[in-house]
Amino acid sequence: MIAFGIDPGSRFTGWGVVRLRGSRCEFIDCGVLAVGDGPLTGRLSSIFDGLNHALNEYSPNHVFLESIFHHKNARSALVLGHARGVAMLSASLRQIPVDEISPAEVKKAVSGRGRAEKAQVQEMVRVLLGLPQVPQEDAADALAVAIAGSVRSQYSALTDLMQKPRKKRAVRKKR
Amino acid sequence: MIAFGIDPGSRFTGWGVVRLRGSRCEFIDCGVLAVGDGPLTGRLSSIFDGLNHALNEYSPNHVFLESIFHHKNARSALVLGHARGVAMLSASLRQIPVDEISPAEVKKAVSGRGRAEKAQVQEMVRVLLGLPQVPQEDAADALAVAIAGSVRSQYSALTDLMQKPRKKRAVRKKR
Repeated sequence: MIAFGIDPGSRFTGWGVVRLRGSRCEFIDCGVLAVGDGPLTGRLSSIFDGLNHALNEYSPNHVFLESIFHHKNARSALVLGHARGVAMLSASLRQIPVDEISPAEVKKAVSGRGRAEKAQVQEMVRVLLGLPQVPQEDAADALAVAIAGSVRSQYSALTDLMQKPRKKRAVRKKR
Repeated sequence: MIAFGIDPGSRFTGWGVVRLRGSRCEFIDCGVLAVGDGPLTGRLSSIFDGLNHALNEYSPNHVFLESIFHHKNARSALVLGHARGVAMLSASLRQIPVDEISPAEVKKAVSGRGRAEKAQVQEMVRVLLGLPQVPQEDAADALAVAIAGSVRSQYSALTDLMQKPRKKRAVRKKR
């Protein structure tokens, strides 16, 4: 199972790819699409092209994004939405399932605590993936999301396995 | 000049196409992409496909969207942003210039008043384009944006024409 995490932004979009092998996440690749601060339309095209390139290269089974419940202000939420929409579309056009993961779930999966600091999470990404140094901020965030997505998938698979198949109830037809 | 207006939304995205002939706008086509309320990723794909289809069919010279300065809340602004991002991308990938027009400019262009009511604007769209009835709400809004875009383009062309070429000032070099 290859998980692809995206941390979208209208200026910097981070992405990170990990492979789940047994119960361990292996690092595959990560990057940051720095699309400058020109017109938004051009930036959206660059985000789309960059993500398409990475998705083509690694053919992930699943794409994960951090969900957003609260946002400082409507203006920046609107702009962020543009980048997120394009990121979701790039996966969706390839029929890759896209799921959102709450920030608390990401922190919990990576550091064991739902309220860990950002720097702690990034350091744990480095440790878990055995990297020589912490990747660029947005790439590290995307890797954290990909790790959390892998953990969730593994957990769902285990839960499915442990659940006994239910007996079908005979349905008696009314006459 | 063919102008394509979009009124993006995560459930209903309106689009409208007009042709500017002399100083008059002619109706070409309009529609509403009703993408239901399933998962957002699927809705974004449907918006993208629908707009691609219409853009392919009418090859507009310019795409216009209403700009958004204020929004009720960050949550709905974020979701709207996803649809707007995908709409902008569909034009941008075709190298069609995309411009935003303020709601006041749209109202002014269509009804002559920057503070007109929504229903007035929609009725004026019907009158200006000589339609037998007011189109569906989101399509009418998109047509209003397309009309305003055409008016702006015509105005810029006129202004360019009327401006005399400036004389170049001789630049004296310091010794």
